[in-house]
Amino acid sequence: MDQRYSILTLGTADMARARGFYEGLLGWKPFMTEGITFYDAGGFILGLFGHKELAEDANLPVGPVGEGYRGFAVAYNARNEEEVDAVLALIETQGKAHGAKVLKPAHKAFWGGYSGYFADPDGNAWEVAYNPFWPIDDAGHLQLPKTQTT
Amino acid sequence: MDQRYSILTLGTADMARARGFYEGLLGWKPFMTEGITFYDAGGFILGLFGHKELAEDANLPVGPVGEGYRGFAVAYNARNEEEVDAVLALIETQGKAHGAKVLKPAHKAFWGGYSGYFADPDGNAWEVAYNPFWPIDDAGHLQLPKTQTT
Repeated sequence: MDQRYSILTLGTADMARARGFYEGLLGWKPFMTEGITFYDAGGFILGLFGHKELAEDANLPVGPVGEGYRGFAVAYNARNEEEVDAVLALIETQGKAHGAKVLKPAHKAFWGGYSGYFADPDGNAWEVAYNPFWPIDDAGHLQLPKTQTT
Repeated sequence: MDQRYSILTLGTADMARARGFYEGLLGWKPFMTEGITFYDAGGFILGLFGHKELAEDANLPVGPVGEGYRGFAVAYNARNEEEVDAVLALIETQGKAHGAKVLKPAHKAFWGGYSGYFADPDGNAWEVAYNPFWPIDDAGHLQLPKTQTT
């Protein structure tokens, strides 16, 4: 098994609301197939699928999906601090209409970067961060430092 | 905000156990910093971080993290059906010692591919799939069809 993953699929309770957020507010372009909404992130993909359908597909009981922490977070690494501020300002000013909200305002993080969090309409935690030590290439790919290998 | 994400961070209740799975069983190579384990997936990253620390970082109450569905799934797209079988056979035969298990055996999926699921030591759902319509390039990046844009 190669050291990689291909798709992160987020469950949603309301596909129209979730698409309204990612497409209407963030401006992303979807690829639709088989009831799943895919957003091509340049070789990797973010997917949206109904909670019930995703749980069934994974052979798991769907159960309640709470409002709080649910075991993971997605990070969007921005190109600079200004982009972090801009994304969080967008969520702060226009997110409510789409069911999204800021969880944590942008701040200087202990690890030397600049970071904040928002929740998407289904409560999924998204970190928006600028890491001055991890450059992003033109294709949007993070470049980890080469100085540590173990 | 570009149409992409950078890092998927999975919370873990036991970092040593989780690393034993991803590194000891799957053979992945870590990049360690600030208490987080990062696996470079070629411009995108999979991270492991303690449940408590990740919840705190996102400004969310940690609460209980259940055994069942938790609102997302990660997919590993394999290059052929044989690779799907090989990954699931590895989990089936050696996963238990690392706290992992098969959730759903490999099978012909309704969308025309071949797919199964396993749970990592923290119960995170991983789909292992071969999609004949979505080729994977040498760098491991998925290539979505170009025929649909909305």
